[in-house]
Amino acid sequence: MRTFVVVSHTAPLDGEFSLTDLPGGAGRLDILCRCAVETFLVSHGIRKDARLYLVIRDVLVITLDGERLRHLNPDERSTAALLRRALSQGQDLAPGETRKSTSGISVWRAGLAEVLRSLKEEGSDLILLDEGGVPLPQARLPVRSAFIMSDHREFEPEELALVEKLPRVCVGPRWLHGHQCITLVHSELDQREAGWTSGLD
Amino acid sequence: MRTFVVVSHTAPLDGEFSLTDLPGGAGRLDILCRCAVETFLVSHGIRKDARLYLVIRDVLVITLDGERLRHLNPDERSTAALLRRALSQGQDLAPGETRKSTSGISVWRAGLAEVLRSLKEEGSDLILLDEGGVPLPQARLPVRSAFIMSDHREFEPEELALVEKLPRVCVGPRWLHGHQCITLVHSELDQREAGWTSGLD
Repeated sequence: MRTFVVVSHTAPLDGEFSLTDLPGGAGRLDILCRCAVETFLVSHGIRKDARLYLVIRDVLVITLDGERLRHLNPDERSTAALLRRALSQGQDLAPGETRKSTSGISVWRAGLAEVLRSLKEEGSDLILLDEGGVPLPQARLPVRSAFIMSDHREFEPEELALVEKLPRVCVGPRWLHGHQCITLVHSELDQREAGWTSGLD
Repeated sequence: MRTFVVVSHTAPLDGEFSLTDLPGGAGRLDILCRCAVETFLVSHGIRKDARLYLVIRDVLVITLDGERLRHLNPDERSTAALLRRALSQGQDLAPGETRKSTSGISVWRAGLAEVLRSLKEEGSDLILLDEGGVPLPQARLPVRSAFIMSDHREFEPEELALVEKLPRVCVGPRWLHGHQCITLVHSELDQREAGWTSGLD
């Protein structure tokens, strides 16, 4: 299982936005759409062994599970429609409550602390994607790794407190967009599993 | 210089389409948008040493040059607007004629044969991205490589005749989308240039 956690500081907390201005009116929801596409889509298929947690303003978490995910296409607009539907479902949730949206997508009233606690409890190894980390080709990447990153903004201090002691991995010598980091992590793991590169795990 | 050539079999040959249905009414223009984003964008910047040729139905070529490229944002819709503007500029071109669109983007009445001939004449090494190729980590990647790929469809027989004798490189053990291949080629070259991995060139 490969898990990605993307922390969004600007995406909407409801579904009241237009799909025609994702970078502006929808608070950079385009970033989360690209992260979803890169987490799950390969040519003519879906990565069933992948999960994505989109932590929005530490209030709502959209979870996407490759095992049951349907209706995800590679274009941003249709992906945004799926996320908007999930956000609409999250309006009156009590803290800790979860509600299903479309197949493989649910919304959870929780924040980063709850996501990380849940991942630790199930035995995932948390890894922070960070430019100061160990280069990806040399990094230890356990089978149940969960990779955590921020959106276009830095982590807030209270978020940083939750992640700053985690092992850090750097995906490349250039500073890249979040969705590109996901593509590169998948590729490194694909190559290790296929014996193209050795890695350490 | 890193050059990518993407052959599209379905994108429109004019600008008469809506930005709200890129996968459908605009003939999978979303694929070309993602290829443009991955060719040029890194976090907070543009790769100036990159070029992209979008060969559309062997009739029009949109060329994007990182050295002069402006107005490119990571979301698909605004990228599609740039490509639509270029397509509108290409309507009455004579064969071989080129016209500038927005900064760093021009449109050329030509097909795959003319693009490949131009790249060979300037000394680029042509490489076909293909699942049967040499694994990327072991591939010879000269400094002036030009990487050629098709869109969601196979090459047509007359296109295949132009590329089938080229050296082939495979970006990963999974079959990926075209834009993901671009991300991975860039990353491999970034890592070789930074000394993270050795490569052969």
